[in-house]
Amino acid sequence: MEAYFDNSATTRCYKEVADIVVKTMTEDFGNPSAMHLKGVEAEKYVRDSAQTLARLLKVNEKEIIFTSGGTESNNLALFGGAEANKRMGNHIITTAVEHAAVGQPVERLEQMGYEVTIVPVDERGVVRLDALEKALREDTILVSTMYVNNEVGAVMPVEEIARLVHEKSPKAFYHVDAIQAFGKYRIYPKKLGIDMLSVSSHKIHGPKGVGFLYINDKVRVQPQILGGGQQAGMRSGTDNVPGIAGLGVAAKMVYTDFEEKIKHMYQLKEHLAEGFLKLPDVRLNGMELWEGAPQILSASFMGVRSEVLLHTLEDRGIYVSAGSACSSHKRKAAGTLSAMGMEAAQRESTLRFSFSEENTFEEVDYCLEVLGQVLPMLRRYSRH
Amino acid sequence: MEAYFDNSATTRCYKEVADIVVKTMTEDFGNPSAMHLKGVEAEKYVRDSAQTLARLLKVNEKEIIFTSGGTESNNLALFGGAEANKRMGNHIITTAVEHAAVGQPVERLEQMGYEVTIVPVDERGVVRLDALEKALREDTILVSTMYVNNEVGAVMPVEEIARLVHEKSPKAFYHVDAIQAFGKYRIYPKKLGIDMLSVSSHKIHGPKGVGFLYINDKVRVQPQILGGGQQAGMRSGTDNVPGIAGLGVAAKMVYTDFEEKIKHMYQLKEHLAEGFLKLPDVRLNGMELWEGAPQILSASFMGVRSEVLLHTLEDRGIYVSAGSACSSHKRKAAGTLSAMGMEAAQRESTLRFSFSEENTFEEVDYCLEVLGQVLPMLRRYSRH
Repeated sequence: MEAYFDNSATTRCYKEVADIVVKTMTEDFGNPSAMHLKGVEAEKYVRDSAQTLARLLKVNEKEIIFTSGGTESNNLALFGGAEANKRMGNHIITTAVEHAAVGQPVERLEQMGYEVTIVPVDERGVVRLDALEKALREDTILVSTMYVNNEVGAVMPVEEIARLVHEKSPKAFYHVDAIQAFGKYRIYPKKLGIDMLSVSSHKIHGPKGVGFLYINDKVRVQPQILGGGQQAGMRSGTDNVPGIAGLGVAAKMVYTDFEEKIKHMYQLKEHLAEGFLKLPDVRLNGMELWEGAPQILSASFMGVRSEVLLHTLEDRGIYVSAGSACSSHKRKAAGTLSAMGMEAAQRESTLRFSFSEENTFEEVDYCLEVLGQVLPMLRRYSRH
Repeated sequence: MEAYFDNSATTRCYKEVADIVVKTMTEDFGNPSAMHLKGVEAEKYVRDSAQTLARLLKVNEKEIIFTSGGTESNNLALFGGAEANKRMGNHIITTAVEHAAVGQPVERLEQMGYEVTIVPVDERGVVRLDALEKALREDTILVSTMYVNNEVGAVMPVEEIARLVHEKSPKAFYHVDAIQAFGKYRIYPKKLGIDMLSVSSHKIHGPKGVGFLYINDKVRVQPQILGGGQQAGMRSGTDNVPGIAGLGVAAKMVYTDFEEKIKHMYQLKEHLAEGFLKLPDVRLNGMELWEGAPQILSASFMGVRSEVLLHTLEDRGIYVSAGSACSSHKRKAAGTLSAMGMEAAQRESTLRFSFSEENTFEEVDYCLEVLGQVLPMLRRYSRH
């Protein structure tokens, strides 16, 4: 049996996504910038996808800027947002649990002379609103937080954050990294007070190499990749028509029968968590089960190194992640777990199980069965 | 009948490319950054592609940095190259006929305080070596030229340029935009003295949304998209495995039976050019037929506006481009044609016909037949 529980790293593409990708690679393969019919046909796929996404977010299709993925979206929001608004102020706020695709750009912005405040989180991984409130200043120009944390599934109170930001820092724009949240929550940026929102396609059964940044039309952002002026000048380069079309199909599908899918993931998560608690010395991390994100369960298997357990599970066809899989093989302390105040011994025994709608209860049972077998064995070894 | 002569805008993907894209989207869909088997499998596609490209260019696979396409490659070379070497000097050189994906970044670098020299071209569109030689200085840090011009197919003397650059400006790196050249020429950067080379996948029957930048390991480049540290830290973001794998397959295929394919394109070009010269008032632009690039033929149909002719041909199933199709519907004077000293009347009557290995003599004959019918009619109208 095989159980792929690493859907927060990446997901399998829907068959319908593969179909439209093939169609736009081999039949309707034109360049949307071309003036002739082949270009017009190709452009229609791009517009259809933008319209789908705009409808889902209840925004204008012109506010959807396609990029090469979540990382580029975050970089565009941060570098482009900071550059375009530097006359307004010099202060940027983010949290201690951001993905490297936010953390690294912020670090560079600090080197470039921006003042940066990193807001802490509580023991569940949730940003501390009191600390955020204190950090917000008159000259704050940009606040960036995630929606769902990728390591423990903590859900940030984005609506309250937005309210505080706009109340205390009227010049600031609020950027949300929604890469683990889109497809798991219904997100309406205008209602929530979110000015920019980053989304990745391959986390929702769409193609890799594509994503988008929602930019409220009142927000000024300096383009970062320059050239032929595609995406209304915000992102040059021949539109990735197959990727964009695939993302549109994936988004439409992931929000179809949405409530059932989310319930299914929560039930899988609950079933797995209940099983964990029957095993000795397993701790669950993050928010209460039904408060955290539906697809992510973080657990610590005390006395067993996460890498050892990961590879033991791998041998039985179970695929999970040690911390976040998004940083290229880097062996560094998982940022979120440290920021939550977790001690090294627990951090180093932590695995992330992440679901998609395709996972089954049989897979969860199989995983629990395997864990029941291997944990006592691994613990025996590690004591010697 | 249909004749797609806009292959310099984009090409149809090879079937084998579509196959590997589907396989990596739906079966081997892992995240190369994941530590388990699914990640290792996915990473193998990325390494295989890098090895294929490295072999073709005779460089090290670690010198291949995958990007989201040619535009990003150019931006990375220019912004990243300028930033990383600004202590060495402040002077940048490029030519008057670059694609916007080079021209626009250079313009922004100038706004940022770099000194920029734009070297002119001759009436064929070829960079003037004497002007380049005069422009090269001790404090020049970056020289960027294309290999093949996208509007008229002029081929730049990259080996001589490289020699001059390294002789006169020992601190300078030489970047080549090879987006219209890769797959049409055998390019060996180390032999030619090229330090960075931009390549796009969708111009060689590969997927859109992917490309690479060759960076000689002695060249320092500041990464522009930061995050998880993929691509050896040079370009973060989950590797676009399907795109990268597709690019590898396309590159291997385009260089298979290479000489025959190039000869076929030159023969198509010659056949079309000979047909043009039998029509009244048609002028051929750029270098002599067999000196220019095999896939691009630029011609001016005096007395007929290029857009009118383009749409007339479109109605008959013939797809061509007015100037360069890569800038999103922008109606501005074609840069290359102006830089060649061409007058407005001729510029505005110019079309680009661009071939791939898939085009046939029948298509060329059909195009000539249609032109023979419609040109007198269009000219009659435009005189009224």
